[in-house]
Amino acid sequence: MDKPYVIGMDMGGTNTVFGVVDSRGSVISKSAIKTSNHPEDVNLYINDIYVELSKLIQAAGGIDKIKGIGIGAPNGNYYTGNIEHAPNLPWKGIVPFAKLMSAKFGIPAALTNDANAAAFGEMTYGAARGMKDFIMITLGTGVGSGIIIDGKVLYGHDGFAGELGHTTAVRNNGRLCGCGKTGCLETYCSATGVARSAREILESTDKSSLLRNIPSEEITSKDVFDAAMEGDEVAKEIFNFTGKILGESLADFVAFSAPEAIVLFGGLSKAGDLILNPIRENMEKNLLPLWRGKIKLVFSDLKEADAAVLGASALAWEL
Amino acid sequence: MDKPYVIGMDMGGTNTVFGVVDSRGSVISKSAIKTSNHPEDVNLYINDIYVELSKLIQAAGGIDKIKGIGIGAPNGNYYTGNIEHAPNLPWKGIVPFAKLMSAKFGIPAALTNDANAAAFGEMTYGAARGMKDFIMITLGTGVGSGIIIDGKVLYGHDGFAGELGHTTAVRNNGRLCGCGKTGCLETYCSATGVARSAREILESTDKSSLLRNIPSEEITSKDVFDAAMEGDEVAKEIFNFTGKILGESLADFVAFSAPEAIVLFGGLSKAGDLILNPIRENMEKNLLPLWRGKIKLVFSDLKEADAAVLGASALAWEL
Repeated sequence: MDKPYVIGMDMGGTNTVFGVVDSRGSVISKSAIKTSNHPEDVNLYINDIYVELSKLIQAAGGIDKIKGIGIGAPNGNYYTGNIEHAPNLPWKGIVPFAKLMSAKFGIPAALTNDANAAAFGEMTYGAARGMKDFIMITLGTGVGSGIIIDGKVLYGHDGFAGELGHTTAVRNNGRLCGCGKTGCLETYCSATGVARSAREILESTDKSSLLRNIPSEEITSKDVFDAAMEGDEVAKEIFNFTGKILGESLADFVAFSAPEAIVLFGGLSKAGDLILNPIRENMEKNLLPLWRGKIKLVFSDLKEADAAVLGASALAWEL
Repeated sequence: MDKPYVIGMDMGGTNTVFGVVDSRGSVISKSAIKTSNHPEDVNLYINDIYVELSKLIQAAGGIDKIKGIGIGAPNGNYYTGNIEHAPNLPWKGIVPFAKLMSAKFGIPAALTNDANAAAFGEMTYGAARGMKDFIMITLGTGVGSGIIIDGKVLYGHDGFAGELGHTTAVRNNGRLCGCGKTGCLETYCSATGVARSAREILESTDKSSLLRNIPSEEITSKDVFDAAMEGDEVAKEIFNFTGKILGESLADFVAFSAPEAIVLFGGLSKAGDLILNPIRENMEKNLLPLWRGKIKLVFSDLKEADAAVLGASALAWEL
């Protein structure tokens, strides 16, 4: 009998969300637990998941209806199924998470990092359905990426390919990144990067701006978005700057893998054309002539609340 | 009966070289014709090839011994077998070259661009034997690249992936490139790029240098190499600068595809450690910690005279 469902699970630093998903990409049930209640033992964390997830599985008709579990986790290595040295998770070193989950539930489990899972979800249920070559850029607290080549996630030799947030966008005097390098794309185009740009641009000009009503250190990317929506010129300039940096980098990514499309996902996408226009303009300017006007630049069309679970679940159809 | 040979053919702007190759990567016979004797009709050019190549084929035991023809050509599109708008070839527009060759010889033919062919050759017979994920950088008149992902050449959505010579190495005030963009890696790390750097660095300093004995506009990358080998400090500085630009770019490429190795091929490789050391140092400095010390950086070990034919021939084993 064909198994009609998969489990998708998104492990974040704070919350772990999981759900039962059908083949059309509907999340038919969903629940969540805290990620860090058991920093001393990952098995206790898995127990917590088991208790909650078993209810959803029973409601869906039992474990026999479930093809497998797909997991998106920080520093998740698809090849090994391990979570390796994740700075934002409580368990240190190498955790054989897919194996532990599979043993606990008695069904296959696969794991990858969150950006790869997002790309997988976009290909299976979202804006990249039917595409075999595209690049997913996730614009959140950081900048992540999932690269699809010939219908498969690009993992590379060691399982860690697709760290485009840590390519160097600004070569000289670039911003210090959490990874220890300077000038990383992430330091400009993440939510915190946009807030840093806001502070820099506000300091560099005398122009009036709604953003000056907020203490400089408290400005967030959402404040920039809100101000831009009210027509604030400085806020628009901040988006133009962000879009320029991202567009320039995207052109280099196109020269690498010649994708059909680039899909943008995450908080910044909410800014719509305010961010898409400068991204597109600067990408086009930096493309080889053969690609100009040909690379689709689109936003994810997965519902944000479900996207992470959907992305992770997409992995499980392959099991 | 198994067919023991393939044909490899390398189409350059000036000469077209072809040879019969066995499965161990020995070029058992080789010949060449002028590429541009028949700018009016590509079929006449193919006739010239036919006349010369038929002799080699007969000497190898006849066409029944030949599995197929692999062709490396500028602007060659693997997906279509076409040469598309090649600026350095006499035939304009789109030439269905693989199809024409296959019809003429009565055996299958496949075509790709020269850098992809080089990567294929390196994987089949050379320094990357046994590797499934690596990046080949060809340092010649231009900077080309062939990217191998999971044992296959990366072609991308349209067949033109791997234009790493046209990623932007210098974002502001970069050098004008033949492609119309500025700051392309190729404008710094090709043979002409090195010569440009020589002129710039000589002008920027008063240091004595052997290179000052050569009229500035006539300095070549070979002159820089010769001077560096004699211990010339300015020449070494030129290589350090070139290696810095290339190493920084390589780190970004690693963040994209997490290759096992980067293989360097072409004229600049002759400079050995003089160029390899600054490349490695600057690549390492710009890698995420997880990759430091782990990415092999090697020179091609194919004999330069045979490498292009070998690379093209490797394509034909897949036919």
